[in-house]
Amino acid sequence: MISTTMSLTTSKSMGPITWDDATWILTSSFIIFTMQSGFGLLESGCVSRKNEVNIMFKNAVDVVFGGLTYWAFGFGLSFGNKAGSNPFCGIGYFFVDTAAEEMGILFSTYVFQLSFATTATTIVSGAMAERTKLLSYIVFSFLNTICYCIPAHWEWASNGFLRSLGVVDIAGSGAVHVVGGVSALVAAFILKPRKGRFYDGLKAGENPLPMGNPANTLIGMFMLWWGWLAFNCGSTFGISGGKWKLAAKAAITTLNSSMGGGMVGIFASYILLKRKFDVAFLVNSILGALVGITAGCAVVRPWEAVVIGIIGGTLAVGSAHLLSRIKVDDPVGAVAVHGVCGIWGMLSVGLFAATDTIENTTQGRSGVFHGGGFYLLGVQLLAAVVITVWSGVVSAILLLGIKFTIGLRMTEAEERLGADYVEHGVGEEDDLPFYERGLFSPPR
Amino acid sequence: MISTTMSLTTSKSMGPITWDDATWILTSSFIIFTMQSGFGLLESGCVSRKNEVNIMFKNAVDVVFGGLTYWAFGFGLSFGNKAGSNPFCGIGYFFVDTAAEEMGILFSTYVFQLSFATTATTIVSGAMAERTKLLSYIVFSFLNTICYCIPAHWEWASNGFLRSLGVVDIAGSGAVHVVGGVSALVAAFILKPRKGRFYDGLKAGENPLPMGNPANTLIGMFMLWWGWLAFNCGSTFGISGGKWKLAAKAAITTLNSSMGGGMVGIFASYILLKRKFDVAFLVNSILGALVGITAGCAVVRPWEAVVIGIIGGTLAVGSAHLLSRIKVDDPVGAVAVHGVCGIWGMLSVGLFAATDTIENTTQGRSGVFHGGGFYLLGVQLLAAVVITVWSGVVSAILLLGIKFTIGLRMTEAEERLGADYVEHGVGEEDDLPFYERGLFSPPR
Amino acid sequence: MISTTMSLTTSKSMGPITWDDATWILTSSFIIFTMQSGFGLLESGCVSRKNEVNIMFKNAVDVVFGGLTYWAFGFGLSFGNKAGSNPFCGIGYFFVDTAAEEMGILFSTYVFQLSFATTATTIVSGAMAERTKLLSYIVFSFLNTICYCIPAHWEWASNGFLRSLGVVDIAGSGAVHVVGGVSALVAAFILKPRKGRFYDGLKAGENPLPMGNPANTLIGMFMLWWGWLAFNCGSTFGISGGKWKLAAKAAITTLNSSMGGGMVGIFASYILLKRKFDVAFLVNSILGALVGITAGCAVVRPWEAVVIGIIGGTLAVGSAHLLSRIKVDDPVGAVAVHGVCGIWGMLSVGLFAATDTIENTTQGRSGVFHGGGFYLLGVQLLAAVVITVWSGVVSAILLLGIKFTIGLRMTEAEERLGADYVEHGVGEEDDLPFYERGLFSPPR
Repeated sequence: MISTTMSLTTSKSMGPITWDDATWILTSSFIIFTMQSGFGLLESGCVSRKNEVNIMFKNAVDVVFGGLTYWAFGFGLSFGNKAGSNPFCGIGYFFVDTAAEEMGILFSTYVFQLSFATTATTIVSGAMAERTKLLSYIVFSFLNTICYCIPAHWEWASNGFLRSLGVVDIAGSGAVHVVGGVSALVAAFILKPRKGRFYDGLKAGENPLPMGNPANTLIGMFMLWWGWLAFNCGSTFGISGGKWKLAAKAAITTLNSSMGGGMVGIFASYILLKRKFDVAFLVNSILGALVGITAGCAVVRPWEAVVIGIIGGTLAVGSAHLLSRIKVDDPVGAVAVHGVCGIWGMLSVGLFAATDTIENTTQGRSGVFHGGGFYLLGVQLLAAVVITVWSGVVSAILLLGIKFTIGLRMTEAEERLGADYVEHGVGEEDDLPFYERGLFSPPR
Repeated sequence: MISTTMSLTTSKSMGPITWDDATWILTSSFIIFTMQSGFGLLESGCVSRKNEVNIMFKNAVDVVFGGLTYWAFGFGLSFGNKAGSNPFCGIGYFFVDTAAEEMGILFSTYVFQLSFATTATTIVSGAMAERTKLLSYIVFSFLNTICYCIPAHWEWASNGFLRSLGVVDIAGSGAVHVVGGVSALVAAFILKPRKGRFYDGLKAGENPLPMGNPANTLIGMFMLWWGWLAFNCGSTFGISGGKWKLAAKAAITTLNSSMGGGMVGIFASYILLKRKFDVAFLVNSILGALVGITAGCAVVRPWEAVVIGIIGGTLAVGSAHLLSRIKVDDPVGAVAVHGVCGIWGMLSVGLFAATDTIENTTQGRSGVFHGGGFYLLGVQLLAAVVITVWSGVVSAILLLGIKFTIGLRMTEAEERLGADYVEHGVGEEDDLPFYERGLFSPPR
Repeated sequence: MISTTMSLTTSKSMGPITWDDATWILTSSFIIFTMQSGFGLLESGCVSRKNEVNIMFKNAVDVVFGGLTYWAFGFGLSFGNKAGSNPFCGIGYFFVDTAAEEMGILFSTYVFQLSFATTATTIVSGAMAERTKLLSYIVFSFLNTICYCIPAHWEWASNGFLRSLGVVDIAGSGAVHVVGGVSALVAAFILKPRKGRFYDGLKAGENPLPMGNPANTLIGMFMLWWGWLAFNCGSTFGISGGKWKLAAKAAITTLNSSMGGGMVGIFASYILLKRKFDVAFLVNSILGALVGITAGCAVVRPWEAVVIGIIGGTLAVGSAHLLSRIKVDDPVGAVAVHGVCGIWGMLSVGLFAATDTIENTTQGRSGVFHGGGFYLLGVQLLAAVVITVWSGVVSAILLLGIKFTIGLRMTEAEERLGADYVEHGVGEEDDLPFYERGLFSPPR
């Protein structure tokens, strides 16, 4: 977030937002919500066909239950500026509502932040795919808002302790992606791998549980790609004054980073997998590059964005491989893409950021390569560490709590049958007599 | 519609619309059109695979032929303000065109209204799925504009008789969804059920013609969800003055309502279907909640929106079940979601609306729960009744006219074979010799 | 492009763009990028299932490598205004970057133009489907920027020679679609048909390699349809002054044209194919109509747009048939839709354009039917011819160069197996033992 969020939490007047800014913020939010469709397709394409309905259902659950809790207390803990608000968390705006005069700024801010919050929760669902009980997931998504909303306060509320130190995380490499990626790692670790994912004799890179629908995975990646433009550019949180210049810069750097990342993924796959162009390599490298540019999108130069993307893509592909070697089973690569590259995004600001003379996003500081010394890098590293620790601890508490009460994992029989059948009754009707089943369909 | 539509029909100067408003209106229209993609996926996911191409084709037909007639006479009958315009219908702007000075306001209004009109027609196609001759459907979609454009005049033109009485239907629970839902009911009734849909011994909730592709149904639902934000928020019909505040409010209430509805659908399914999370329950409850908030999106409070969504979701799921018990076969749940919840949306304004002090959307009135007495509720009820009667009668005349001339329903053999093969030749090429059919595809 | 692009290349001050314009330009760009998803679905639906992943992968390649070269030199050759810029090509802005004061206008212009450039490249991929080596395609997409960026300079840079002559090509019927369509024709010709596409005894209209997934083709068409609104309306390149009026006009003409085209496609299929409603007829006629209105969208009247669409749709369907009769194998109809209808779009301006009194898009001229005589038609024809020659020659050089070095076409065995398996390893894991493959999926 660049500046108005700050005024929301500091001034009674709610800042000088205009209707031009509202157009930008609301339109961006609407586009960001389309990323839920993108995550749905990406994740359902990555799992086996017997679980594709289930994972899409989970993404709806994220919006429904994650949204309700974000409205009830998440937004307030992030951006509340009433009595008691402090460097650790906000207080106020619970069950978001207000009178006419404050309505415009508060509700548009809320909707924008909600689009971010639901994204963070959805990241985790991918890592839990194909083996988690849906009822348990519902409880998790209901509670997981707590994990997201606190680091958002640290970084984006005017009295957040990381912002006071000068952290720069424009669209959330840390507050969205590290949070989601670390929770995903904890979830994958607690859940243990899917049956049959790892067995003796498996060679490097082999996956006996391949993508059920790689075409859907690619369409999902495309949707996320374009949605990311609104995600990063919308984070100027307005268009008036000099903000439109930063928004335009965020657009070119976001695109350039994705190109750098995609290039790495394509070549790496060709070289490492003996002339194959692997879909997961492409998808992870592009998304990893996008996560990497998210923190610094408006404060790095276009060519630096290509470099950030190249490194992000490399980290995504490399760490996905590494995780599979140490037998962490993350069906959609959420830990590598969001967790590892999220940390890279935070650090890249400490290296590449130049002082922002337009909206003072960087609070007058610069990164190592622009003569700013190591202070900013240190703050960015500190932010990555504290967010990692927070997310890891909170999601471990939530998930272990669920595990030891209602249970987290499906039985082996359920897992074999697939969640689509077990949880949603998909395919059940095939027990009906043949002549009642809408058959006589021509062969395809 | 909030206010500029009114100025379009009252003043020669076409109202004080600015380019800021045009950005909002046009961008919203573009996003609303994406709901056609959403309807296409939702509906094709709901039918059996032998009809999925056909139903998507129908949605294109809706835009092509529904659009041509809307341009020719629909918009004029809704919003024409020339001599002869009266409380029942507008006159003027047939074959929409104008000179340079009026161009901006007229064309952006037209495009926005067209995005609404094509939506209303598309609603009906779902209820007619899997058994309607495509040629007959084309004739229907060509004529059905008449059914939509008249109620839009009543509610949204400045001299419409319902508007004069004070009706509040901001984004069309009545003028879009009740119209579509009632036509859908009439169509399902005239067409009779699909072969094999109902037979003796079927237990409550059983459907021998299940969703062919529930994953597509869910993706379609997601697309509609985000498109709905533009639908409801765009209905401020501008962003300048205080309109951006109402747009921001419409965004939070729309989202809150959908969460309330989704919560009901998920829990109802879990309880009623013995621990299954049914996809149709989720989809119908979320969409029903969205329809329910459509009329009052900018004039109710966020917590009231949750309540409206909970009731909307309950009504959608309950009435879908009821309709199947009385053997009305509506393959996609259009009657329950759009018809029943559309009426609920109209009534909910009469209960929950508070006086809008910003743009005077409510013409100074309030609903029952905000001390406004029963006048507004009465007007909303009247609107729901007259729109129901109008849509029922007009679509019955159109559909019976088609039935008794060129026929409406496919033969039983055609229905068994499926419309994809019968109407579109999909699968025909499988008669070609094996070695010419693009085979050698690896097994999936 | 209407006017600011001109100021970008003529004035040091980068033109009087406001943040309102930036909102319009950037939002349009984000929506235009969604057309990549549309192309992906359309093309993957048109090919056999053994190649659907491959063609979607190619679309990602277009953005990654086409984007990198557009950033490195494409934008500079199109819109550079530094010393050496001339009527044939621009000079400057290589590796696009700039300082803070110019940032807003340059980066938003670049992002908008990039969304156009990647579209032009993607058009070609469809015609090359199912038989091109992916590595060769990567090299092609890397180099093909040169083919696109020069005609864009001719038409849209202030010192381009076609613009000096008065050419009108608002959203690129010539600079985008003729370029893409002609390259597609050259590619299809050089590649030769797919195995089994043409054989003796094939009757007119028969295609032994049918669409693998017509439902996806239709969803792809829908996505392109709505994206086209941003494509054409965004080409006002701003919303301030009178530009919003032209944007609104572009929206209605774009929609009207698509309706005219779709009507033709539906009726033509019904009549010519003996009461079948063919998906390819519908898709090609709607897209052909959209290509046809692209050049003149803001300078023709709504009823003229219907006529332009009817002719565009007829040309698309007719020329697709003709191309198959002369055994040019273009799996997705790119040559007919983009090439032939692109030329029609250029000529239609020469016939139907009326003097634009608002932003002077037509440089004071009119088309034949508005009393402007034959000058404008002559210029439009000249533009179509020189763009055709340029695109044909450049892509032939590139493709033949690739053919005679690393090779262009897959082996027959690879083609039979399908690119998904050969290039991406999709299906490989089926060699693993049965019990390790995520089976036990319920029958669908």
